[in-house]
Amino acid sequence: MKKAAVIMGSDSDLPVMEKAFKKLKDFDIPFEAHVMSAHRTPERACAFASNAKQNGFGVIIAAAGMAAHLAGVLAAHTTLPVIGIPIKSSLDGLDALLAMVQMPPGIPVATVAIDGADNASILAAQILAVSDEKLAEKLAVMKIDMAEKVIQKDDQLQEKLK
Amino acid sequence: MKKAAVIMGSDSDLPVMEKAFKKLKDFDIPFEAHVMSAHRTPERACAFASNAKQNGFGVIIAAAGMAAHLAGVLAAHTTLPVIGIPIKSSLDGLDALLAMVQMPPGIPVATVAIDGADNASILAAQILAVSDEKLAEKLAVMKIDMAEKVIQKDDQLQEKLK
Amino acid sequence: MKKAAVIMGSDSDLPVMEKAFKKLKDFDIPFEAHVMSAHRTPERACAFASNAKQNGFGVIIAAAGMAAHLAGVLAAHTTLPVIGIPIKSSLDGLDALLAMVQMPPGIPVATVAIDGADNASILAAQILAVSDEKLAEKLAVMKIDMAEKVIQKDDQLQEKLK
Amino acid sequence: MKKAAVIMGSDSDLPVMEKAFKKLKDFDIPFEAHVMSAHRTPERACAFASNAKQNGFGVIIAAAGMAAHLAGVLAAHTTLPVIGIPIKSSLDGLDALLAMVQMPPGIPVATVAIDGADNASILAAQILAVSDEKLAEKLAVMKIDMAEKVIQKDDQLQEKLK
Amino acid sequence: MKKAAVIMGSDSDLPVMEKAFKKLKDFDIPFEAHVMSAHRTPERACAFASNAKQNGFGVIIAAAGMAAHLAGVLAAHTTLPVIGIPIKSSLDGLDALLAMVQMPPGIPVATVAIDGADNASILAAQILAVSDEKLAEKLAVMKIDMAEKVIQKDDQLQEKLK
Amino acid sequence: MKKAAVIMGSDSDLPVMEKAFKKLKDFDIPFEAHVMSAHRTPERACAFASNAKQNGFGVIIAAAGMAAHLAGVLAAHTTLPVIGIPIKSSLDGLDALLAMVQMPPGIPVATVAIDGADNASILAAQILAVSDEKLAEKLAVMKIDMAEKVIQKDDQLQEKLK
Amino acid sequence: MKKAAVIMGSDSDLPVMEKAFKKLKDFDIPFEAHVMSAHRTPERACAFASNAKQNGFGVIIAAAGMAAHLAGVLAAHTTLPVIGIPIKSSLDGLDALLAMVQMPPGIPVATVAIDGADNASILAAQILAVSDEKLAEKLAVMKIDMAEKVIQKDDQLQEKLK
Amino acid sequence: MKKAAVIMGSDSDLPVMEKAFKKLKDFDIPFEAHVMSAHRTPERACAFASNAKQNGFGVIIAAAGMAAHLAGVLAAHTTLPVIGIPIKSSLDGLDALLAMVQMPPGIPVATVAIDGADNASILAAQILAVSDEKLAEKLAVMKIDMAEKVIQKDDQLQEKLK
Repeated sequence: MKKAAVIMGSDSDLPVMEKAFKKLKDFDIPFEAHVMSAHRTPERACAFASNAKQNGFGVIIAAAGMAAHLAGVLAAHTTLPVIGIPIKSSLDGLDALLAMVQMPPGIPVATVAIDGADNASILAAQILAVSDEKLAEKLAVMKIDMAEKVIQKDDQLQEKLK
Repeated sequence: MKKAAVIMGSDSDLPVMEKAFKKLKDFDIPFEAHVMSAHRTPERACAFASNAKQNGFGVIIAAAGMAAHLAGVLAAHTTLPVIGIPIKSSLDGLDALLAMVQMPPGIPVATVAIDGADNASILAAQILAVSDEKLAEKLAVMKIDMAEKVIQKDDQLQEKLK
Repeated sequence: MKKAAVIMGSDSDLPVMEKAFKKLKDFDIPFEAHVMSAHRTPERACAFASNAKQNGFGVIIAAAGMAAHLAGVLAAHTTLPVIGIPIKSSLDGLDALLAMVQMPPGIPVATVAIDGADNASILAAQILAVSDEKLAEKLAVMKIDMAEKVIQKDDQLQEKLK
Repeated sequence: MKKAAVIMGSDSDLPVMEKAFKKLKDFDIPFEAHVMSAHRTPERACAFASNAKQNGFGVIIAAAGMAAHLAGVLAAHTTLPVIGIPIKSSLDGLDALLAMVQMPPGIPVATVAIDGADNASILAAQILAVSDEKLAEKLAVMKIDMAEKVIQKDDQLQEKLK
Repeated sequence: MKKAAVIMGSDSDLPVMEKAFKKLKDFDIPFEAHVMSAHRTPERACAFASNAKQNGFGVIIAAAGMAAHLAGVLAAHTTLPVIGIPIKSSLDGLDALLAMVQMPPGIPVATVAIDGADNASILAAQILAVSDEKLAEKLAVMKIDMAEKVIQKDDQLQEKLK
Repeated sequence: MKKAAVIMGSDSDLPVMEKAFKKLKDFDIPFEAHVMSAHRTPERACAFASNAKQNGFGVIIAAAGMAAHLAGVLAAHTTLPVIGIPIKSSLDGLDALLAMVQMPPGIPVATVAIDGADNASILAAQILAVSDEKLAEKLAVMKIDMAEKVIQKDDQLQEKLK
Repeated sequence: MKKAAVIMGSDSDLPVMEKAFKKLKDFDIPFEAHVMSAHRTPERACAFASNAKQNGFGVIIAAAGMAAHLAGVLAAHTTLPVIGIPIKSSLDGLDALLAMVQMPPGIPVATVAIDGADNASILAAQILAVSDEKLAEKLAVMKIDMAEKVIQKDDQLQEKLK
Repeated sequence: MKKAAVIMGSDSDLPVMEKAFKKLKDFDIPFEAHVMSAHRTPERACAFASNAKQNGFGVIIAAAGMAAHLAGVLAAHTTLPVIGIPIKSSLDGLDALLAMVQMPPGIPVATVAIDGADNASILAAQILAVSDEKLAEKLAVMKIDMAEKVIQKDDQLQEKLK
């Protein structure tokens, strides 16, 4: 199976990104995680993206805050799909969201919600599952589990309202 | 090869979406396009998404404006990756952007820029290319073409500034 | 009397929604409350809305945060008036507000303020009171009570400023 | 049948409001329309709202732009449901939207989309239909019509894409 | 000397408004303060504004949050200048700011900063001082005091940086 | 009678400001108008404000766009009330609005709506009318005229809807 | 004298950037201009920035729209000051502004107003003038010229108002 | 070497500005820091800026919140480059950002991120380093240090993920 890469612009993003690690483990998706900065270690970031495909990666998740260039800079150096997580650190995360999602024509970044680390991993799984039926089944199971949890919460509410 | 689906909430989105069709054709990606509304034809939209995987689709592109629920509603009914294009019709497209990208945990939408139909198709190609080396090569060629066009523009600017 | 339905997208919305329950009880409006997600339990949500009218409901209140599709999805499946409460969980609730209020032509959502659970219930009462004179009288009494409380606060301020 | 009132803050809102008149006529809902300003003719506006119920109205639609107080001021003087249409005239209509939807506890305004005159009338019909089965049927028919129009648009797209 | 009126929409605004009271006392400006709501006690608010001029007031300060209609509603009933203080309670106070400052032509509200109770009182003093030379002198003295305080802070910084 | 000063940051603001001139003439308020820039002619602007009171001015209106500092800079040099008009030139005028209304404690600017030149003049009239009964009467007459115009518009609408 | 570099992300930025060229010529500052994209020609952009200092540049101006990464990417590869011009192409330029100005600690971008090409060149001149007294004098002359033009506009207004 | 000036509008900005002092000391850049207000001590602020160049300053850093005029007012009185730091005190700092960065043509302010005191000092160093090779080397060393710290963080993450 192809690997997922999880790149974050700063180790201060770790508390948010733990959710991404957990989800990838739940799906048994092999992954590497790195702290790499588009601005402070640009060569390392570019080299990583340039070589990601031949190094066995199938998808890259990039998380960054403020003027969040990381996802776009990685996307500029690879043909792999790049998923962007805007991290909230100022202006409620609106700056990071716009700096990620509003990519100009030619270089898309698949942007998820502000601090949406779990959804980034689910999206990575969906992408890898396009050619991996077993992973697709895990996603289908996860959907059923999610529904069941909502139903349980509804049952608890009915108890409470009696 | 798996097909791409291009779903738009209204036929008024067609002028923006032509760019998506063109890109998919450039990549020789087979696709179907449909007008389906999350609010006016919800059953058709849900049925389409529920059956998309077994009908041979690998990725879904969804475009909608205002309170743009289409991408999220489709994503609720499939494990395929769903790409969302926020269409500008009021508030400069900010309403559609937030209604697409801020999906709650469990159901991601891979959101691209406001009116970013070309990037949605490139992202679809990147997703399908994870398991399709020939498509990946086309993406690599497109990257080189884009670079060459920028270099040409730079050459023209040098002429002009002489 | 027709019943009110109170649907919330997640049980994390309960602290806000308690105010809605309280107001409905104050007005002696029979109601059911449910946790149902537009994205995680879409079939249950759609089925509930589709059957709401024949099950004796007269109005539906829907609360959700982030890309808040719940109210719109319910409204797509019923001709009953649907009241939307945008729940604040990111971007100060602006994402949920726009994802609710900016509904495209054909499927309105009667949107109230961010976290405005009490006003949602008052609006539900106003809607049911159109054909229920006794409920209309309770609303008139509530208006007088509210005015009296403001006047008391003013009296207290006069005491304080002496 | 109870009447609908359509109040607009300025006659410059008429081009938007024609859609509301048309929809109300489609539903055979009797209505009165007035130009009344919360700021320039406050007494008339307040008197209209105070007497609306006993004058046979069941619902009030109010449209205004900028610091749009009209809907809230009317709502302060009646127990009827008041529907607010934020009119776009500056800041893309965001000022009117926030000035309408963010009503403080006690006095709700059922806010629809910016310039959403058609949805305001549909919502008015939904409210009156709570106790009017014939009107509810018209709403159900309208839903079917809307769906059919979307399906026609999809058929046209299939023709075009052949 | 003409009096100032300080009207607040809710007694929850008191912590912010204490600064306004203090400033008015500093300037020896006689004032009355009231809790009056544009929505819950509209008649009292309108009556107050209608009679304010003949009751000896020269200026009205109005503070309110959310869809802050209070200042506009008072301004609709008087020819006295009305100063608006947007109170922060949701959306960082942006809703109250826009609902106050964006008044349509004919009925201005002199809006100050979000939670700017001190500036509202200084502005009230400036307005009353147009025809009150003694008050104008107090304002001039206040300006000198403010400058001196800044200079002291600068001196302290120089000490600290040595 | 004290004069009004109308200061604009650029002659490109003239089309908006003509409305202010007209209103002041309607009220027979003597005024001077100047193009003065807080950034390009700061000394002239400061000198004007410093001497405004002794030169017979009672109120200053200042209009500027973008990072609109003009009103605040004038207010720093006078104890007269300063009215600010945010001029729309980028970001829909939101930049100018925030740069005017959010003045720090000590130096208020009485801000009106974006491009609200007529309201600025009415506010100036209200301020001067605090000590000028004749001007106050003109304001009262203007209020009646405005109401009559709205009533005429309503009459026209009734004709049209027959 | 050190040269200025003017880098734009797309040749569609040329109409805005002509103003920058003109200003630099007015100051007799030698400059090179290039079309280079952070995303489509990342290597060329990075190489340019890496070598800019030794190639005789003293300052870099970078213009880009949407998720405007260009200035930040250049700044990551040089110790020269980098001036960013956010170009308006969607969301009124707010996306480009935030993507430029909100740079994380370590890599500043000296951001000017949206479409502020003339100010970018003036700032470049100010930076080069720190060690170039002749250029500083030109800036001082420009300041006097600007003031004179404002005074002329004021004179014209006085004529007009007579 | 030319000095840097650090001007803050209020001593409440000190906690943010300590980072600026530290960075300037790290670079051995001589600096003066002052509390000066554009509104409360305008003459001192203007005099400081007017004389800054002849007093040996090469660059001015200005920090202010709300309607942050300080940087623009200083820039109006000098040909030195002025760096603006928008300080967060309301509206998440968006008001101060727009009031700084959106300077009209002729008077630029080199704006950095909200509360970006460290980047302001680095930018000041970059500006002074244009003609100071030793300082340029310190900046190059800082860049290497920053990269190394990111690499260390990445190493720590690898340890943690083992």
